[in-house]
Amino acid sequence: MPELTTYPADVLHEFSARVLAAAGVPPDDAALAADVLLAADLRGVDSHGVARLRGYFDAVRSARINATPELRVVRETLTTATVDADNGLGLVVGPRANELAMDKALDAGSGWVAVRNTNHFGIAGYYALQAVERDLIGWAMTNSSALVAPLFGTSRMLGTNPLAIAFPGDEEPPIVVDLATSAVAFGKIEIARRRQQLLPEGWAIDAAGSPATDPQAVYDGGALLPLGSTRELGGHKGYALAMMVDVLSGVLSGANWGPFAPAFAIEQTPPGSVGAGIGHFFGALRIDGFIEPAEFRRQVDHLVRTFRASPAAPGTSGPLVPGDPERLAEEERRTGGIPLLSPVAAELEALAGETGVPLG
Amino acid sequence: MPELTTYPADVLHEFSARVLAAAGVPPDDAALAADVLLAADLRGVDSHGVARLRGYFDAVRSARINATPELRVVRETLTTATVDADNGLGLVVGPRANELAMDKALDAGSGWVAVRNTNHFGIAGYYALQAVERDLIGWAMTNSSALVAPLFGTSRMLGTNPLAIAFPGDEEPPIVVDLATSAVAFGKIEIARRRQQLLPEGWAIDAAGSPATDPQAVYDGGALLPLGSTRELGGHKGYALAMMVDVLSGVLSGANWGPFAPAFAIEQTPPGSVGAGIGHFFGALRIDGFIEPAEFRRQVDHLVRTFRASPAAPGTSGPLVPGDPERLAEEERRTGGIPLLSPVAAELEALAGETGVPLG
Repeated sequence: MPELTTYPADVLHEFSARVLAAAGVPPDDAALAADVLLAADLRGVDSHGVARLRGYFDAVRSARINATPELRVVRETLTTATVDADNGLGLVVGPRANELAMDKALDAGSGWVAVRNTNHFGIAGYYALQAVERDLIGWAMTNSSALVAPLFGTSRMLGTNPLAIAFPGDEEPPIVVDLATSAVAFGKIEIARRRQQLLPEGWAIDAAGSPATDPQAVYDGGALLPLGSTRELGGHKGYALAMMVDVLSGVLSGANWGPFAPAFAIEQTPPGSVGAGIGHFFGALRIDGFIEPAEFRRQVDHLVRTFRASPAAPGTSGPLVPGDPERLAEEERRTGGIPLLSPVAAELEALAGETGVPLG
Repeated sequence: MPELTTYPADVLHEFSARVLAAAGVPPDDAALAADVLLAADLRGVDSHGVARLRGYFDAVRSARINATPELRVVRETLTTATVDADNGLGLVVGPRANELAMDKALDAGSGWVAVRNTNHFGIAGYYALQAVERDLIGWAMTNSSALVAPLFGTSRMLGTNPLAIAFPGDEEPPIVVDLATSAVAFGKIEIARRRQQLLPEGWAIDAAGSPATDPQAVYDGGALLPLGSTRELGGHKGYALAMMVDVLSGVLSGANWGPFAPAFAIEQTPPGSVGAGIGHFFGALRIDGFIEPAEFRRQVDHLVRTFRASPAAPGTSGPLVPGDPERLAEEERRTGGIPLLSPVAAELEALAGETGVPLG
């Protein structure tokens, strides 16, 4: 196991913001981007936090991502819009587009914003939780570069295409659904390779489309499987959900979709591009457009308590409520700090050296 | 294998409509309900079609379902509404509430309708396809009586809670996502029991919460597993999706949720009821609120063709597009008729005897 170094969240936040500013991102935008990055680290989604700071920094500094995008609403109704994000940083574009969806919901009951010409936006759950803070039900989705094979296919055709939705409770914390539509995240393959462990069947296939248990096979032209893994266990369902996210985020916005979605921090427009950048999709619903909000929150509390109190399967501590693991991680990490693997800490130290921004 | 008898779709349609009318459903409503039922039989979802006619008939005739409901909008904004369906037949309530969502979308870009005090509405895909006929993106969800355990639980706490969304193509047929959020439908357990076959691991658990391979264990207090089946393969994701559908359909409308959702064709309000009937959730988005519809349809065609043309995994004929199996069934059954298992055919013959409505 690599060594862990623990940093206070506010240290990593300030560092991230100043590093992005050093790359040319305006200070307010850099602070917002740091909010989104740190939300991932705090919630235990380590793959989407400061571990990606180097990637964002390099892409911005080399102008592969636009540090000063001008977001443009290219089409709009009272409750819908498409935003062209001018190849901006997803961590800045995402919160702004989500804001537009929420504003529309507050005006007209619901708001839906598709975004094109954007880049990776961090964790989807961040956006859904922003809506909950405004007493809304919030949705967020994004497509991403292809890693997942369709059921019965061999090729990487879809991203891990996450989808999030959050519902506010009253005394209980919100229910936060935040999931990739693949069986597992690519990070789990990386970990297995590093530890020289076999993969369980159902995670991935090799380049020929056969089940892969050797993690190296996934690197050698293989692919992840969709949620449900096989036909027998419902792999057609995870595949369909990934395509739903792809159409809403990619096709509806005019971004690239499926195998055309560019890689994280675009090197160049891939040959055969069918749109601009990747795409996101945000939604918000006003609860009082359906039901008395106090009653809704009371029922959410009742539901949360009912599920928590239901009997535990053997060898488990019983059902969790979606969002529990991330919330518990956040409680711990807000006070105890954020543990980083030594290669990630080393990468941040290198960034500190390059930019002159001190790390803590 | 039980024997099959094949009936023309229009014969079953007329029979269903007249049987429901004989139970007291007004003729126009009965014809609409028959549309929804037959959509299931045509699309190959046999469990949700005329196999349920007896259940609907008995519930309406005994007034457990209201044959002449007065639907009431209890709360409304420009783009949202909650409908109290007066304990009406879901097959009639569903199309009306979906209509309201579509009308709102045509007016304001998007429309969202939650429904409470309703009953089972047939296949979710029917509603999404109604929206596609009006050039909209259509969504439909419903909760249902509890059959599915939460991950790490032992008890039936959630319905199979389906979710559907459909996107129109141009020359290609629409993409239709229509899936239960459980690993499999309960019907697959029934079939295995009838054939005395073992279940694959990942479908179900027994009453103690351990993996069940004996189908009888599911009847004896066991439960279905959510999509993803186990923690390792992503069972927490299917569980979260089922809860998402439950909150949008049940909590947001003021219906029963989770373990409180009444059984198909309500016998009585279950003790500890937390709302009225079960709940549905419908949504519609106007495509031209985001992008030029011709461009959207062109890209959907391109996407559909790209996925169909992608390489096949060993032993398969290659990736399908969501909605393909149901569409192919419909093409076949519209001309070749609908094959019914002999117990279902016998049930219809019995209904013919009781009501005097001839079957064909």
